[in-house]
Amino acid sequence: MNLNQQIEALAADARDASRELASAETTRKNAWLECAVAQLIAVREEILEANRRDIEAAQAKGVSAVLLNRLRLESKWDAMLDGLKQVAALPDPVGEVSELRLRPNGLRVGRMRIPLGVIAIIYESRPNVTVDAAALCLKAGNAVILRGGSEAFHSNQALGRALQTAATKTGLPAGAIAVAPSRARSAVDQLLALDRYIDLVIPRGGNALVRKVREQSTIPVIAHDAGVCHIYLDATADPKLATGIVLESKLRQMAVCNALETLLCHEAIAESVLPTVLGALHEQDVEVRGCARTCAVFAKAKPASEADWGEEYLDKIVAVRVVADLDEAIAHIQRYGSDHTDIIVTNDYGSGQAWLRRLNSATVGINCSTGFADGYQLGLGAEIGISTSKLHSFGPMGLEELTTRKFVLYGDGQLVG
Amino acid sequence: MNLNQQIEALAADARDASRELASAETTRKNAWLECAVAQLIAVREEILEANRRDIEAAQAKGVSAVLLNRLRLESKWDAMLDGLKQVAALPDPVGEVSELRLRPNGLRVGRMRIPLGVIAIIYESRPNVTVDAAALCLKAGNAVILRGGSEAFHSNQALGRALQTAATKTGLPAGAIAVAPSRARSAVDQLLALDRYIDLVIPRGGNALVRKVREQSTIPVIAHDAGVCHIYLDATADPKLATGIVLESKLRQMAVCNALETLLCHEAIAESVLPTVLGALHEQDVEVRGCARTCAVFAKAKPASEADWGEEYLDKIVAVRVVADLDEAIAHIQRYGSDHTDIIVTNDYGSGQAWLRRLNSATVGINCSTGFADGYQLGLGAEIGISTSKLHSFGPMGLEELTTRKFVLYGDGQLVG
Repeated sequence: MNLNQQIEALAADARDASRELASAETTRKNAWLECAVAQLIAVREEILEANRRDIEAAQAKGVSAVLLNRLRLESKWDAMLDGLKQVAALPDPVGEVSELRLRPNGLRVGRMRIPLGVIAIIYESRPNVTVDAAALCLKAGNAVILRGGSEAFHSNQALGRALQTAATKTGLPAGAIAVAPSRARSAVDQLLALDRYIDLVIPRGGNALVRKVREQSTIPVIAHDAGVCHIYLDATADPKLATGIVLESKLRQMAVCNALETLLCHEAIAESVLPTVLGALHEQDVEVRGCARTCAVFAKAKPASEADWGEEYLDKIVAVRVVADLDEAIAHIQRYGSDHTDIIVTNDYGSGQAWLRRLNSATVGINCSTGFADGYQLGLGAEIGISTSKLHSFGPMGLEELTTRKFVLYGDGQLVG
Repeated sequence: MNLNQQIEALAADARDASRELASAETTRKNAWLECAVAQLIAVREEILEANRRDIEAAQAKGVSAVLLNRLRLESKWDAMLDGLKQVAALPDPVGEVSELRLRPNGLRVGRMRIPLGVIAIIYESRPNVTVDAAALCLKAGNAVILRGGSEAFHSNQALGRALQTAATKTGLPAGAIAVAPSRARSAVDQLLALDRYIDLVIPRGGNALVRKVREQSTIPVIAHDAGVCHIYLDATADPKLATGIVLESKLRQMAVCNALETLLCHEAIAESVLPTVLGALHEQDVEVRGCARTCAVFAKAKPASEADWGEEYLDKIVAVRVVADLDEAIAHIQRYGSDHTDIIVTNDYGSGQAWLRRLNSATVGINCSTGFADGYQLGLGAEIGISTSKLHSFGPMGLEELTTRKFVLYGDGQLVG
């Protein structure tokens, strides 16, 4: 079999497996998760050895420190195993019937939650995604096809083998978890054309990857795209609260999509509050790139250019703009934002309500950190990622977002007539 | 402006309009619906004259009677206006907050229903879709771009003008309803590339249209595809109930996607019940194409070929197969079906439950007509179509399916920490 045939065969196997998985009891799926923990522990050395091969190859190619860090499995090992246990503890969304209603003709109509079927995840350097994504997809009753970055190839193969061994040991169908057997790019091309077997593709990675998948795929895509997150300090923003929220939103983790990128400030507090907030950022070595009015009140700011608005720095830089009012803040975000996460700091009832109602980003909030745009923080239990597509699921995606609903009809001979 | 620029300009206007529409009160949207009824009545003659031009041109080209019927607006006029009134009476899904929960840190997290944004509908010959689709999209707070079939071009232009006049009169933004200004195919190509303005494409039509849109679009697509619907007569099926359900499912409307195409029958009742059911179909001039065992019990059956399984006849033909049991029935449907609508006729509790649980078609039911796979019949109030894509919405789509949800966060200074 050539590579295309191999990929097609594993997708067809995944489709068959998905039908069995769709009605697998929760106890069977949880048994797999628990067995996967045991199996990963049993072959830990083998996996870390494969990971070292990947790291050494990456070092030889001279990749950046950030990328090397993403590759490293050892430091994430315990969190990875904890993740599996957490997914086992989550309630199973499959089979739940909601909105069961009696129609006037006596027909009972409800909606039953079912798995999507086969999910392909295309991701970049983090090999721990192999385990996280497989756990969530299978718990929601889906078969999964994993295609990680070529630089993590050996790590992913070793992790995949462990997950598959656990499947065999607990009687899940063999096709339930597939790891693409090649690092060739053509494997991705082939996957994206298999719409008769695959129900959903989730690309997780940079803009180039997401765009390629969107353009090429005939399978539905849920993109995990850029996060250009904003905080808007309204005229009534409490200075202490504003400073705390801005600092954490920018500095807690900078290379993630829910980090603050642009700070907007109502002109009424540009002189009174903004310098304090920016001073606190500057003290933490954050470069401030401001509009003219920002530079006028905060001398350490560098002038921002047009390109700074809408920029996802993922770094110790923040763009700052003074605006006339809430309308101008919303207009700025609608023009430059990425529909990800936007927070207002205010003590004004009307401003808060208008913010939540008028700004249709995936996560909109009042007086809290942008860091809450995260499935775990929002109470979803875990997340497969943060969708920037409005279709199907918008924002952090948990188990439920990996399912869909069918109509179930209980009749006793009803005709439409 | 050339055509591409025109299309891009109307998509950009639709995007701007969608932002205003997203927070438009229900009363404003209903005022538009009511004004649209009045406006359509006011320009009825002008619209029917445009429709006559389309019909004459189609006749001159010698199109089929079915197609001509689809084109005709006069016979559907009253139903079209009633549809607008019905949509006005439906509850507005936008703004509803659900699952509002208090997190352990005091943050309140909920999910607010919001419009999708801009929806493009690409459809074939029925010009009344222009009005139906615009009504549902706008009621759900979306801007809409309509691209009907070239054979209905003048009808669609006239209908679109009336809808736009109603928008102007009731103060809705001008870009809220756009009708593609050309019948050139390149207008569709251009639309499908405008993912920065358009949030969803719904192709309604034949397989070729759906496939083209899927392959070409970088915008999310919800397909309204073939319906290969099955009825399975279980060993305990009541003969009278089975006959009634099969007859209606096949004959009520034959050219629709929820019509019966393949009948499966448990071997235990192949001799006792099946001949009665098939006799009733035959009496109504339905051609029966059966497997060998069907032909053995029903002499008027013609032998079915492999191509009959999975065929969407949309005509007075039914494929019939005798199966060993429920497992074989499910296996047949999973192999040949289109995940649309599948009904079991049974009096056995276990069979009914297994059917609903194991068969993941968009609509699965016990003891009722396939005709219930319809948004109005299922209680959605109206439908924009029946999705055969699992993503976002599976099965009949109502107003709610034209929206998505964002996370809304009510904090008082919470940090992730």
